[in-house]
Amino acid sequence: MTLHAPYDPNNIFAKILRGEMPCVKVFEDEVALAFMDVFPQTEGHVLVVPKSLEARNFLDLPEAFVGGYMLRVQKVARAVEAGLKPDGLRVIQFNGAPAGQTVFHLHFHIIPMRDGVAMGAHASGGMKSADELEPIAARIRAGF
Amino acid sequence: MTLHAPYDPNNIFAKILRGEMPCVKVFEDEVALAFMDVFPQTEGHVLVVPKSLEARNFLDLPEAFVGGYMLRVQKVARAVEAGLKPDGLRVIQFNGAPAGQTVFHLHFHIIPMRDGVAMGAHASGGMKSADELEPIAARIRAGF
Repeated sequence: MTLHAPYDPNNIFAKILRGEMPCVKVFEDEVALAFMDVFPQTEGHVLVVPKSLEARNFLDLPEAFVGGYMLRVQKVARAVEAGLKPDGLRVIQFNGAPAGQTVFHLHFHIIPMRDGVAMGAHASGGMKSADELEPIAARIRAGF
Repeated sequence: MTLHAPYDPNNIFAKILRGEMPCVKVFEDEVALAFMDVFPQTEGHVLVVPKSLEARNFLDLPEAFVGGYMLRVQKVARAVEAGLKPDGLRVIQFNGAPAGQTVFHLHFHIIPMRDGVAMGAHASGGMKSADELEPIAARIRAGF
């Protein structure tokens, strides 16, 4: 049962949260960390992950944490919109590998959309370096 | 600016909320209404809409309403999982037409996924009747 497997503390987002792996950060507070997806499906693709929680997915998230976490998802979505001025914005969350989840620590994707530009498949554009992502992250940070 | 246009109270979800249009309901309380998407992208595709609010999208949603609404999104997602036993589940929300939004009252999509079955494009499978959707809705209601 992919949807209800135990949490694996060695997943890559847990490593990022522990500072064992780098990320290009756009937001952090006591509840959540937001950083650039290194396999962006559009320019400006950001992930928002809850801290101090062993939740694999949204179904797992204890109810007491839903409001606080989702306020950070909204806050980051608003900053992406303010900083990058896209034409639209997708908020996407996958539960389980058959839904497209590849890292098993809860995360919402914030994906800015431009008129006439399709969203790429995951990893289709290749992995981006911190140097490539940093100028976009700087514009998002200015959106808070 | 599609993302920040005024709310149009004649959108179809507002009509459903006012009882002027039918829906195949799976959940309702004072905060949210959940019903079957008549253009399902997979079997069991449900929409969760906030009540008593003029929010076009998630960016618009007043912060005071985020927690209560998202708890209902989670509650419905859990019921879809419990009732239909999919292999995975997508939680998707579109802001603005360029992101894929077609009805301009805030809604989250809950889309159950099966191993090896792709999600159809919006409306690609045609419009489903209440008679076709009702047996699936009954299974989801049993998941609460």
